[in-house]
Amino acid sequence: MTNTQLSLIQIDNYGPWTVTPEPRREMDLQTLQSRLFADLAQFVGSRDGYVFFTRFDNMVAVTNGLDEADHELLQESIANRYPVTISLGTGVDASPVEALESATAGLQTAGSAQDGDRREVLSGDVLAESDRMPEDLQIAHFDVNDATGKYTDRLNEFDSFIQIEQGYATLMRYLREEYGALSFFVGGDNIISVCPDMDEADYRDAIAHVEREAGVELKVGVGTGRTAHVAGFAAKHALEVCREEGTDVEFDRPHVEVADD
Amino acid sequence: MTNTQLSLIQIDNYGPWTVTPEPRREMDLQTLQSRLFADLAQFVGSRDGYVFFTRFDNMVAVTNGLDEADHELLQESIANRYPVTISLGTGVDASPVEALESATAGLQTAGSAQDGDRREVLSGDVLAESDRMPEDLQIAHFDVNDATGKYTDRLNEFDSFIQIEQGYATLMRYLREEYGALSFFVGGDNIISVCPDMDEADYRDAIAHVEREAGVELKVGVGTGRTAHVAGFAAKHALEVCREEGTDVEFDRPHVEVADD
Amino acid sequence: MTNTQLSLIQIDNYGPWTVTPEPRREMDLQTLQSRLFADLAQFVGSRDGYVFFTRFDNMVAVTNGLDEADHELLQESIANRYPVTISLGTGVDASPVEALESATAGLQTAGSAQDGDRREVLSGDVLAESDRMPEDLQIAHFDVNDATGKYTDRLNEFDSFIQIEQGYATLMRYLREEYGALSFFVGGDNIISVCPDMDEADYRDAIAHVEREAGVELKVGVGTGRTAHVAGFAAKHALEVCREEGTDVEFDRPHVEVADD
Amino acid sequence: MTNTQLSLIQIDNYGPWTVTPEPRREMDLQTLQSRLFADLAQFVGSRDGYVFFTRFDNMVAVTNGLDEADHELLQESIANRYPVTISLGTGVDASPVEALESATAGLQTAGSAQDGDRREVLSGDVLAESDRMPEDLQIAHFDVNDATGKYTDRLNEFDSFIQIEQGYATLMRYLREEYGALSFFVGGDNIISVCPDMDEADYRDAIAHVEREAGVELKVGVGTGRTAHVAGFAAKHALEVCREEGTDVEFDRPHVEVADD
Repeated sequence: MTNTQLSLIQIDNYGPWTVTPEPRREMDLQTLQSRLFADLAQFVGSRDGYVFFTRFDNMVAVTNGLDEADHELLQESIANRYPVTISLGTGVDASPVEALESATAGLQTAGSAQDGDRREVLSGDVLAESDRMPEDLQIAHFDVNDATGKYTDRLNEFDSFIQIEQGYATLMRYLREEYGALSFFVGGDNIISVCPDMDEADYRDAIAHVEREAGVELKVGVGTGRTAHVAGFAAKHALEVCREEGTDVEFDRPHVEVADD
Repeated sequence: MTNTQLSLIQIDNYGPWTVTPEPRREMDLQTLQSRLFADLAQFVGSRDGYVFFTRFDNMVAVTNGLDEADHELLQESIANRYPVTISLGTGVDASPVEALESATAGLQTAGSAQDGDRREVLSGDVLAESDRMPEDLQIAHFDVNDATGKYTDRLNEFDSFIQIEQGYATLMRYLREEYGALSFFVGGDNIISVCPDMDEADYRDAIAHVEREAGVELKVGVGTGRTAHVAGFAAKHALEVCREEGTDVEFDRPHVEVADD
Repeated sequence: MTNTQLSLIQIDNYGPWTVTPEPRREMDLQTLQSRLFADLAQFVGSRDGYVFFTRFDNMVAVTNGLDEADHELLQESIANRYPVTISLGTGVDASPVEALESATAGLQTAGSAQDGDRREVLSGDVLAESDRMPEDLQIAHFDVNDATGKYTDRLNEFDSFIQIEQGYATLMRYLREEYGALSFFVGGDNIISVCPDMDEADYRDAIAHVEREAGVELKVGVGTGRTAHVAGFAAKHALEVCREEGTDVEFDRPHVEVADD
Repeated sequence: MTNTQLSLIQIDNYGPWTVTPEPRREMDLQTLQSRLFADLAQFVGSRDGYVFFTRFDNMVAVTNGLDEADHELLQESIANRYPVTISLGTGVDASPVEALESATAGLQTAGSAQDGDRREVLSGDVLAESDRMPEDLQIAHFDVNDATGKYTDRLNEFDSFIQIEQGYATLMRYLREEYGALSFFVGGDNIISVCPDMDEADYRDAIAHVEREAGVELKVGVGTGRTAHVAGFAAKHALEVCREEGTDVEFDRPHVEVADD
């Protein structure tokens, strides 16, 4: 069974800061946001977690394997190098959306995201090292069938983007409502979903729904692991199998080591 | 009348690169993409243009004021510092979507986005300095009414994100289809649109459509200018007026200097 | 005759900030400093200037071609993205050290580098566009003869570094005292000097002095230009000529185009 | 007794790359180097190690606590995001210079730093977790007495820099020759030394030597610890004691917790 540890990363009082004392240059804000995300991606990613940019002022991370001290260090390091600070809430649950619900609740209880006095909150639970298991995470990596041939090389870039975006908007809502899975657009034609235990039929159902509703054809590789990186890497390999074999859904197969005798 | 210069920024052969010789760590790809975007935002932004991350492997920039030499320098500098290269296509038109159509066509003619031999293409037209006018650009800056109170402080982060995202998906499609405007999510609850000449009724129409279809309430500040920064900054100030006065649509008003005598 | 425009970039009140409320993690400070330098290098460099990291809290830039508005924009953009602000002083003179003297004096007059109330000073003169000439800058690019063979592949890294460092310490002092030139270590075995009009004999003199005092053998390419990039690029090409022809001092020669008839 | 683990970080074949096919823009090289260093500082620093930029194409890191897998991950992540790759050599010894000697030898044995076929070497030993002790590292943090009052606020920036630089050049050589300690300039008026077991008299000797030879007055805080961060942080606190009490050499004192009863 999955046991997902999620962290909500929230820039403290960011909205008001962006217009104080008057609006700041948009490209400076874009630079700040994307570099902050990149730094989080390196910190969390080099500890085998995943971070998604979501709304940039609120980001969601899969942090199985990171403990409270790691979260504190991240908070301290960001405060040392940026003009803004971050609050962090963590939660653990078999259902990703429930884990995020806990993570979010911790910050909400501490005050509003736009409360100038609420800074660098750190709240919530992490998974004890002794409770961690090889199947704590199920990660699905979707992409769009032949996006380059059908969209990028044919339509203007915005019309290509609309196709991908509508596919994403449909998938994100469906997987959240039906399964409690959280789906994130990660660039190109790629979507990564943090999922509870779902089987092949569930993924076929989701793909069919997106094709029906948005006319976008997806395929998906699915991996499991003790960390987001392990599960996500397995998912990428499974997606490569889809590409090679022309299939729609592939789970990573256990690499069986055959003994000599 | 508007005269929008758009540049399509396309990472050359990026998809294949991300899985060669085998899939690369996802957080390294995320870091690479977001830092590349940040560098583009600084280069273009400090020349008063705007860049939007769109799909990250394909980005759209508003580049009125940047000439061919600027585009070449950008291309050279990225090639010197990244493991990937970029192709650039430019286009100019009263209609943003038509400008992007031209910009995209230049790259498509040169070959596929996944053609390993098609590298560092630079194609298309730029607006001659002598043709540039103070109303070349119309930029609209939307945000969601009380997003913090209604979503961020109440729902879990993913459910907040779904609301914002569905509002964005609806707006982007409507403005593109009805007006040829290009809309980009820029973080938080903010959407920036690059528009043709649109009037107050047009913006009210778009806002009403989004509320009807997605249940998301938007307001918008609109600015015009010779550059994206000037137009966008005026739009931000107009949006501040919306916030102060509780209005839905504001255009930046000329700052009239009253003489003493 | 040279006409060098130099800018002193000083982080405001940095020393006290690094230990308030208590000492900050050293690697966060190192990250902050080197990324700030990188951002300055991109801003100034993409406008054909040069920046040197010097002491990191005080940096020296060659800014021929950048006007006061460019300096203001840089200041604003850094303040938007970093937890620290910068003051900028500019100066212009045939002698680099005199230009820097003026640039520094502007900030010193405004208050101490560690005065908490002295923030974002912008002072000094820039070269009027109409006064700029193709020989405003003379840049010399030195490197160490066979540094890889003699040091890097033979000694431990610190002992290699000591050799390079002692060569640099000797050269920087000599060129400053004898000629008013400013020399900066730029990594590897490379030193870049911002020079007044110096001739081949002057450079031979400096190279001989360093060999005599520090036992380090240098060669140098020298370029002139309207901007640091043009002069420095010519210097790099001249240094390539030294490498190919085994010479010690080369000036960039005008590229003569020979007509067919 | 100290037991220092040092890693040599060497950019593979960097010199030739910077001039192939022709010289690259200097500010792009400076940006690349300083950002690469910043990324190493974050990776190593968030694992409680230290990295020094040294010559930028060769950097020295104190890596007690980082194992071979950490080094491999660092190598992979850099290769995914930069146009260059790095080789890493590690060594362990009571004497810092001997540790670096081992670290360097591993790379030298594998080939020249400018051998195009020698890429991503990883060689050398790391300290077993079971052998790590609370006094493995001794870190000294030096600064210049009243550098702002004596230099920064009085001299032009280059002349200030010359003073700091000559003080550093003298200290680095003396500590290396007399004690096998490795000293690195870290910006401002700060020098950090990685030392073997040295006592108060040794530090007084070094400070006196620098004052005599270079006329630069230093003070120093010294810390010990299981990691570079712990030792270096203790050194920073000790240096604060120097500042408050006007002393020249301070060792971090154990923080005695006094019980209530």
